[in-house]
Amino acid sequence: MQVEIWTDINCPFCYLGKKRFTDALAEFEHAGSVQITHRSFELDPTVPVDESGDVVDKLVAKYGRTPEQVAAGERQMAAAAGEIGLQYITSGRDYGNSFDMHRLLHWARDLDRQEELIDALYAANFADTEPLFGDRERLVRVAVDAGFDETTVRDVLSDEQRYAQAVRDDERQAQEFGVNGVPFFVFDRTYAVSGAQPTELFTQALNRAWGDRSTPTMLADGDACGPDGCEVPQN
Amino acid sequence: MQVEIWTDINCPFCYLGKKRFTDALAEFEHAGSVQITHRSFELDPTVPVDESGDVVDKLVAKYGRTPEQVAAGERQMAAAAGEIGLQYITSGRDYGNSFDMHRLLHWARDLDRQEELIDALYAANFADTEPLFGDRERLVRVAVDAGFDETTVRDVLSDEQRYAQAVRDDERQAQEFGVNGVPFFVFDRTYAVSGAQPTELFTQALNRAWGDRSTPTMLADGDACGPDGCEVPQN
Repeated sequence: MQVEIWTDINCPFCYLGKKRFTDALAEFEHAGSVQITHRSFELDPTVPVDESGDVVDKLVAKYGRTPEQVAAGERQMAAAAGEIGLQYITSGRDYGNSFDMHRLLHWARDLDRQEELIDALYAANFADTEPLFGDRERLVRVAVDAGFDETTVRDVLSDEQRYAQAVRDDERQAQEFGVNGVPFFVFDRTYAVSGAQPTELFTQALNRAWGDRSTPTMLADGDACGPDGCEVPQN
Repeated sequence: MQVEIWTDINCPFCYLGKKRFTDALAEFEHAGSVQITHRSFELDPTVPVDESGDVVDKLVAKYGRTPEQVAAGERQMAAAAGEIGLQYITSGRDYGNSFDMHRLLHWARDLDRQEELIDALYAANFADTEPLFGDRERLVRVAVDAGFDETTVRDVLSDEQRYAQAVRDDERQAQEFGVNGVPFFVFDRTYAVSGAQPTELFTQALNRAWGDRSTPTMLADGDACGPDGCEVPQN
């Protein structure tokens, strides 16, 4: 069974939702048969790549909330994070362009090590006051500290074409599904869950999707090559 | 709508099936909304990577056919290819390990140029007597002649980890679908067509899958971050 999770590193609910989903998966009977893919969704692709800003200032400026309202929201988010064992700083977190992080996550997927990288990126953003965005060296350090090869990380980051299409494909697919917020979980392209739902909800979704999993309906069969050779067309 | 085509460069029916599908797609009203992905399926992953052998000799040795039977089969395949405007050589074609070709195809997918590479690989195998397999320099030349950047092609080929997991993921998915021969076409993970079917059959499959396309059923919604910010959890 495939679970695809559209996500952004800027997104606190993605951080919480990933943990709640992972907790559900850890208890799921068929966890070994579940393949997870983290897919790209940029909350704000218009932020310049070399920019980093304080997230509280941004929320105040962009949404017209008072600093007190924003601070209270961050404390609520931190409390919700703490309940599931996640660290969450309530000040000093920055925001920025996440395109290169998504490219790196696609690269890590090819190595079957996407989980390690996304956890490191979330921790660097939500549990560490050192700025994460707009600074390639910091991004390299996060990846290297998570066990990735420095030279290859630098190669991927330097070549802006690498995995760029994969990021855009994810975003196009999200658009086709009508996704307008993340995290967004899709189970075998059959069921969807939007948001950082409670762990029990993810358990229910896993069970339902597992029970309903199916293979595509065969419309036609023949004239194929397999390990035992090809049938020759009968003219 | 997504169409995934499991394929191998060693597979003559994949060559024919791809053309028949492409002919159907060219006439399909919603072709602009169809996203094609060529997926990996190695017919014989046990062949050493540096080996190349004459395909007729192999078919004789492996399947106990006479050289005459194999030659007749290749002529039939060439005739079927000719009917849809494809060149097909009836002698001199080789076979071999296709893993690196599949890795390159995943790389080309990231550049949104998978079609150009797969067409070049098919042509190099089925329409050209120069050996294709077991020779990295030949593979580089095919890709470069198809317009790809030589340095990057060499980089991808040299780093055996690159896209290796993507190839294996495709093969695992094929196994889950019970695929035992290629080409294998999957429409939105809902319908499947096995084999080099007639163009009309692909037209029918495209129409049926288009009519039945759907988005995942929403099981839960809330606590997500979008372009307009995150809702704060209500505790």
